[in-house]
Amino acid sequence: MENNQTSKRSSVTVIGMGPMGQALAGAFLQNGHPVTVWNRTAGKADAVVARGATLAQTVRDAIEASPLVVICVLDYHAVEAILGHEGEALSGKTLVNLTADSPDRARSMAKWAADRGIDYLDGAIMTPTPTIGTPAAVVLYSGSEAVYSVHQPTLASIGGTASYLGDDHGRAAAFDVSLLDLFWTTMSGYVHALALARAENISPREFARYAQGIVAILPDIMEYMAEHVEEDSFPGDKSNLNSAAAGMEHIIHAAKHNGIDASVLSAAYAIARQAIDAGYGMDAFSRLTDQL
Amino acid sequence: MENNQTSKRSSVTVIGMGPMGQALAGAFLQNGHPVTVWNRTAGKADAVVARGATLAQTVRDAIEASPLVVICVLDYHAVEAILGHEGEALSGKTLVNLTADSPDRARSMAKWAADRGIDYLDGAIMTPTPTIGTPAAVVLYSGSEAVYSVHQPTLASIGGTASYLGDDHGRAAAFDVSLLDLFWTTMSGYVHALALARAENISPREFARYAQGIVAILPDIMEYMAEHVEEDSFPGDKSNLNSAAAGMEHIIHAAKHNGIDASVLSAAYAIARQAIDAGYGMDAFSRLTDQL
Repeated sequence: MENNQTSKRSSVTVIGMGPMGQALAGAFLQNGHPVTVWNRTAGKADAVVARGATLAQTVRDAIEASPLVVICVLDYHAVEAILGHEGEALSGKTLVNLTADSPDRARSMAKWAADRGIDYLDGAIMTPTPTIGTPAAVVLYSGSEAVYSVHQPTLASIGGTASYLGDDHGRAAAFDVSLLDLFWTTMSGYVHALALARAENISPREFARYAQGIVAILPDIMEYMAEHVEEDSFPGDKSNLNSAAAGMEHIIHAAKHNGIDASVLSAAYAIARQAIDAGYGMDAFSRLTDQL
Repeated sequence: MENNQTSKRSSVTVIGMGPMGQALAGAFLQNGHPVTVWNRTAGKADAVVARGATLAQTVRDAIEASPLVVICVLDYHAVEAILGHEGEALSGKTLVNLTADSPDRARSMAKWAADRGIDYLDGAIMTPTPTIGTPAAVVLYSGSEAVYSVHQPTLASIGGTASYLGDDHGRAAAFDVSLLDLFWTTMSGYVHALALARAENISPREFARYAQGIVAILPDIMEYMAEHVEEDSFPGDKSNLNSAAAGMEHIIHAAKHNGIDASVLSAAYAIARQAIDAGYGMDAFSRLTDQL
């Protein structure tokens, strides 16, 4: 007779002890899972070892310690460098790759894993390190649903909202890169706007308050722009590419006038200009999704 | 004895009948002000004339009709083309320029006006056309406080929150360009993210829902980034430029892999790279405000 005590949580190995890897290991420990960790620079594991994790001396040892291996490192080059020769050790185990990278690399990795009999899930962590292990965490997974189901109770330790996106291994990464595209472009605009405001004697704190006002109008705008793209119809009656381009010109002029680099917005302006030259000046800004 | 009936509202002239000029004229009419309008293409004034505005045949006639002249056109080139030879007609009147442009052009315009005995206010409308005449409108003004005080009761028709920012005529435009810098860069990121998501079979509506989740985390991030810049301290313990650059590389890779232009994010990446090469890789992304 089997005696599955619910208190006996399954073991997890976490490879990569950057801030996110440490947060993941901490979340598994917090939920009672035996955790084995490995990092290229062992010292980075000190904090989680102090909380009860076991430090493996080699990647091989780390893999052999658990049926579920979670890896979260800088990018897939790092994943390949660490796991490239461990196909045999990983065979029959589940590998969950929470390293951020592009959809095509996620699909290649899935193929590599399938060829070696490794159950593979590709995941994307959408929220910052401090959310891990809390209800605020958002993690996306793609790959085999059966594999996801087996490990879902363990992965739930990561916290918050976990979405399973289907069996295309690239789908989590597709959401990840698209959302990060928006995020990093916005952040680039924000650091630039802070620089421009400061050059005009507007303090960063003062600017941030007004910037939050701009952020508040974004959700509605994003919704109707998505409608435009979905419907393939770009009505410019409220605002159009011509006026957007005029606004961008003023900003570029003001940046240059203050000796501030204007390369990001100049690239955005060039795309708007192309669309205007193609005859779309009276269309909404959303038209640019088709232009790109 | 003077007999100032409070019901007798002062006359306003509105020059420029683009969507925003029409909205402004409509707001003044709605509040009982006699309104005279002029537009290069007279037909665009039809809707506000139907609501009771008087169409002037010439710019000169429009100026002479009211003590307060509000102009809102595409940019300052258009303002100069329309008002450049009307200095004498405007002398002794108040000109409120709600045309969006850069701070230095606002200051040049203020000088032009001062040299001709024109009371000048430079304004920036921060909210879209449909907000005009409603509590949701946000308008910034800069220039002489005395002049602002005289016309504030009339300008209040524009609605919502009006902020007087001080006597530097460039200040409203400085807020305007900085905030629009953030806005248009974000919009450029959004149309690009929609294109990338679509190439990866994520529908625009589906993407918009997740994008709104990203927007929800921005206000906090903007606040602490502003603190970094204000304190000249850029702690990268939670996330740093190295990991941001790695993320940007994945997005650029994914865009190119899907045949999508990556010029905007490539420009942003180049700036991050410069900062990393200068030794700031372990600093927070906010460091870039100093790099620009």
